[in-house]
Amino acid sequence: MSSPVIGIDLGGTNLLVGLMDEDGALIARTHRPTDASRGDQAVMDTIAEATQSVCQESDTPLEAIGAIGIAVCGAVDHGAGIVLRTGALDWTDVPLSSQLQDRLDRPVVLENDVNAAAWGEYRRGAGRGSDGMLAVWVGTGIGGGIVLDGHLFHGPRGTAGELGQTKADNTGAEPRILEAIASRTGMRALANEATMSDSMLMSLAGNDTEKIGTAELATAFAAGDEMGVHVATTAANVLGSAIANAVTLLSIDTVVIGGGITEALGEPWVELVRTQFRNDVFPPQAATWCRLLKTELESDAGMIGAAMLAVDVQ
Amino acid sequence: MSSPVIGIDLGGTNLLVGLMDEDGALIARTHRPTDASRGDQAVMDTIAEATQSVCQESDTPLEAIGAIGIAVCGAVDHGAGIVLRTGALDWTDVPLSSQLQDRLDRPVVLENDVNAAAWGEYRRGAGRGSDGMLAVWVGTGIGGGIVLDGHLFHGPRGTAGELGQTKADNTGAEPRILEAIASRTGMRALANEATMSDSMLMSLAGNDTEKIGTAELATAFAAGDEMGVHVATTAANVLGSAIANAVTLLSIDTVVIGGGITEALGEPWVELVRTQFRNDVFPPQAATWCRLLKTELESDAGMIGAAMLAVDVQ
Repeated sequence: MSSPVIGIDLGGTNLLVGLMDEDGALIARTHRPTDASRGDQAVMDTIAEATQSVCQESDTPLEAIGAIGIAVCGAVDHGAGIVLRTGALDWTDVPLSSQLQDRLDRPVVLENDVNAAAWGEYRRGAGRGSDGMLAVWVGTGIGGGIVLDGHLFHGPRGTAGELGQTKADNTGAEPRILEAIASRTGMRALANEATMSDSMLMSLAGNDTEKIGTAELATAFAAGDEMGVHVATTAANVLGSAIANAVTLLSIDTVVIGGGITEALGEPWVELVRTQFRNDVFPPQAATWCRLLKTELESDAGMIGAAMLAVDVQ
Repeated sequence: MSSPVIGIDLGGTNLLVGLMDEDGALIARTHRPTDASRGDQAVMDTIAEATQSVCQESDTPLEAIGAIGIAVCGAVDHGAGIVLRTGALDWTDVPLSSQLQDRLDRPVVLENDVNAAAWGEYRRGAGRGSDGMLAVWVGTGIGGGIVLDGHLFHGPRGTAGELGQTKADNTGAEPRILEAIASRTGMRALANEATMSDSMLMSLAGNDTEKIGTAELATAFAAGDEMGVHVATTAANVLGSAIANAVTLLSIDTVVIGGGITEALGEPWVELVRTQFRNDVFPPQAATWCRLLKTELESDAGMIGAAMLAVDVQ
């Protein structure tokens, strides 16, 4: 690594900024509320201010920064540096790379947040040493990212990796995409359909499925609440099977799962996903040679991945 | 192309051998019954004899052949030149490349038959000009092959592309793999489950679902027979949706479908697959930018692909 770099993870609620030194150590970090209602220019001003703040904190002149990597929760045109669409920020066609470059006078590389998280886990987290990797991030929705041949795989048309958008049931009875079942939103729908009478999950959410959040799911699942276990297990089974399909198609050796739901439900939930994955993958030997691992970088994965992408553009 | 090459497609029933000249034209071809019950050595003797026969027919000395490509219906270790397992021939761990090389004294490259067909369609058929392609071959089973970045994609563990082995229903009610629904074998099972009383399909098969073959399916489907249409449409829908999932994951621009069932049911059936594919793929724009095409090379795809693989090893 020739120069220090900046990694940014721009989410709907918070933005994280980290400064990585020449040796790859994260030596300063900060975060700000995104507050997207202020509009894209104000958000970019905050990004610039937070970037200057981590430089100051670490006594690194901005001019010494080799490049800036930024991960955004939404669809991006990686090559053009444009945010195509993000619902969480309500942005459409925002030329983020060029406008940040104008503010900070450093090269900027833009990536989708789950692609960046995949790259972070591959370079610095659970996916180190992999010859081919899928990252699946489970939160409000489900995103995916693929690493092949030592590079992020965007596919010929640039949209690769969207496992959450694959149909989990192709047989036509009631087709739903993976995200509509195994995300936090999907788990709410599962709770809505469930018929348990005496449920800790429902009590925690004030008997309103719309109020079921990550914390309520985690508490009820850990306590062995019937509805909590039912919802989490159903989601884990559908997710494990969809992951198996991706591994069957790609013949990769590593899957890393992360995101808010994964972190909150923890290793017992990952083990449910793993069991279904091992049952469904082809060839059967892939159950042994393909690892399914929980994120190591957790909520830093996108920021660290963005920083590592910045290393590569220098 | 510097020298003529040989392409071979070794199937359970027949083996095809073709000689491609320096200009890429197929100038001689022959076929033989495989008759695998004779054992692997006898089959390899027949392959050698048929190869010498096409050389003679085209006045090409065997020594002038640059390389031989051979496609086999089953699991192969491409790098080691070993047929790992093929049920159709009942071979396990047969070192086909080295033993053919002993007989013919030319370099031999081995590939799975659907991978070879994918390569054939990419180089000389419906997939020409693609930046990323999936081939799906529908017959007794369902095989798949992927071309990325101008090369056959085997994946880090060498088994990539097996779309037929992906679960078509991940929701757990009655999980079946794609092949168990949309292949000829799968369509028999669908007919078995169907409840139409007055069926041309069943009459053609002597009221025995086990006797439903490709010809019976094609005739009943073309005639608009209720059961024939039901079975073919169900299979097309599940296949189209599974293809959509693969394109969503890979962001490729071309899908080529072939195999005995595809050829027999023809373009009206491909259009059913296409309609479901377009409905299910993500992002929705992929319904426009990803072509879903019927094979151009038909039953020659494996042989021609094997010959084109031989071109590349010279």
